[in-house]
Amino acid sequence: MQYFFIAPDTILYLLDMIGVVACAAAATLLAQHKGFDIFGCILVSMVNGFGGGTVRDLLLDRHPMFWMTDLNYVIVITATSLILQMFFHIYHKIDKAVKLFDAIGLATFSVIGFKVALAQGALPLIAVLMGICTAIVGGMTRDIICNEIPLVLQKEIYITASILGSCVYLVLDWLGVNTGFNDFIMLSVIFIIRMLAVTFDWHLPSIRLVR
Amino acid sequence: MQYFFIAPDTILYLLDMIGVVACAAAATLLAQHKGFDIFGCILVSMVNGFGGGTVRDLLLDRHPMFWMTDLNYVIVITATSLILQMFFHIYHKIDKAVKLFDAIGLATFSVIGFKVALAQGALPLIAVLMGICTAIVGGMTRDIICNEIPLVLQKEIYITASILGSCVYLVLDWLGVNTGFNDFIMLSVIFIIRMLAVTFDWHLPSIRLVR
Amino acid sequence: MQYFFIAPDTILYLLDMIGVVACAAAATLLAQHKGFDIFGCILVSMVNGFGGGTVRDLLLDRHPMFWMTDLNYVIVITATSLILQMFFHIYHKIDKAVKLFDAIGLATFSVIGFKVALAQGALPLIAVLMGICTAIVGGMTRDIICNEIPLVLQKEIYITASILGSCVYLVLDWLGVNTGFNDFIMLSVIFIIRMLAVTFDWHLPSIRLVR
Repeated sequence: MQYFFIAPDTILYLLDMIGVVACAAAATLLAQHKGFDIFGCILVSMVNGFGGGTVRDLLLDRHPMFWMTDLNYVIVITATSLILQMFFHIYHKIDKAVKLFDAIGLATFSVIGFKVALAQGALPLIAVLMGICTAIVGGMTRDIICNEIPLVLQKEIYITASILGSCVYLVLDWLGVNTGFNDFIMLSVIFIIRMLAVTFDWHLPSIRLVR
Repeated sequence: MQYFFIAPDTILYLLDMIGVVACAAAATLLAQHKGFDIFGCILVSMVNGFGGGTVRDLLLDRHPMFWMTDLNYVIVITATSLILQMFFHIYHKIDKAVKLFDAIGLATFSVIGFKVALAQGALPLIAVLMGICTAIVGGMTRDIICNEIPLVLQKEIYITASILGSCVYLVLDWLGVNTGFNDFIMLSVIFIIRMLAVTFDWHLPSIRLVR
Repeated sequence: MQYFFIAPDTILYLLDMIGVVACAAAATLLAQHKGFDIFGCILVSMVNGFGGGTVRDLLLDRHPMFWMTDLNYVIVITATSLILQMFFHIYHKIDKAVKLFDAIGLATFSVIGFKVALAQGALPLIAVLMGICTAIVGGMTRDIICNEIPLVLQKEIYITASILGSCVYLVLDWLGVNTGFNDFIMLSVIFIIRMLAVTFDWHLPSIRLVR
């Protein structure tokens, strides 16, 4: 069953890069707002772009770090950050693109983190956590460095989308669905939930039962 | 010399879980106050519950992480956080219990971190540091994520209790006291100092000699 | 070609300790200002003193940590912090010394981080990043713990100096310059750029092209 003309791994890699671009754009915007200099902006962009994957790899003891052997990550982030710093005024024009890219990033980072953890022999529950870790730790660290309360932990459908995607994967896998196809389903579920949440301004309700 | 009817390791494990519950409760309270959503609260609870032990294990190169093979940590923390989120109003009723649990956690985490480091062949001074790391890094990271200055670093008898406990252990060990019994002494010393500090509002004085 | 009467490694080690003293002094000052207690100040000093090297070693999978086998780091930092806490009022008298020491630290930490990464077989671009990581992550984490926006990321010639030093090293190495001599050049370049920036209050301009 071959749905793609290009290999699924290539597609995942391209989506990963799109996510990295979104991270670098969001980080550069916040860093400029906080008065960071050129290299400060680039550094925060890198933290946002591959911080989550780095923490995941440290926790799972995977070495060397993916961005140490594949320099595309460092190069793409540096280029994105520099271009945005030079043409700062274009940001509001590309705001919608960044939100779209960000949703692609959330989905791709979750799938990659989840699959990497399973490949390392982690238990399914831990794999779900590693998917979340890959998807949100970078943005969380960016906000911490910039002295803001992390957005992704607040009333936004973000971690929720990642968890739902992982659950769908686990159920379909248990039902015997083909892995490559299942990756694609998980990716779509997370992406669609996130885009719906952004579009309709969905928030997770509080679960406080009694006042 | 057998002082316990249940194995000392089982007791330490149970105390560890009590400490983890205290961490999850404190983190959930702070996270709710900061407006985090359901999963944001759970995530900060996890950071508080096993963040210190995780950093210790990364520094000592111990793999896999304890919470990746023993899912009780993730489950206990998630359950504690969810229950507290649902029955938020009970918190002030259990405030005293949380302080008691927290002191148990401080003592247990210190003992475990200290012993793990010694077992990995660390020097005694480094083992003392690893005890402190296990006991405080989780709470410190919780405060950092919530954009607060870490409580444990301020004028509270917290690190002090951990250091004193470790020192008592090292002296008694040098005097030839039985290890299992010594663990219990160290645990008690830290717990009692912390409870006294909470009860009588003790603070470490400043050591500034001249104005 | 032997330029030193003492071995270059010994000189680098001494300079490293001077950098560590500067880190401990800066951290203690900020921590006291934030109301941390005795051990809180010492802990933040340690994070500032060897936090950058620790993160570098975690990323490069180098174990055990250098400060776990060589206790001089812990001892020098604890002593510096305690002395400064006792004689807090002398700080403004030694302010200039701390700035000098800090520039020495920036240069030494960059050289050590850069060389360690190359020795571990990292690509040159990654080695430059590891030099920066060693030099700034400690101070960055100190600022994050103290709930401040990291100084080193703001409009200061700090990362810039580290990058320029690494570039000079790589060019000279490509030209075939002797390694020991090249270390010394890189060290001097970073130190001089940093001291000039402090003296003449240089800042990196923004690169925004259009308003």
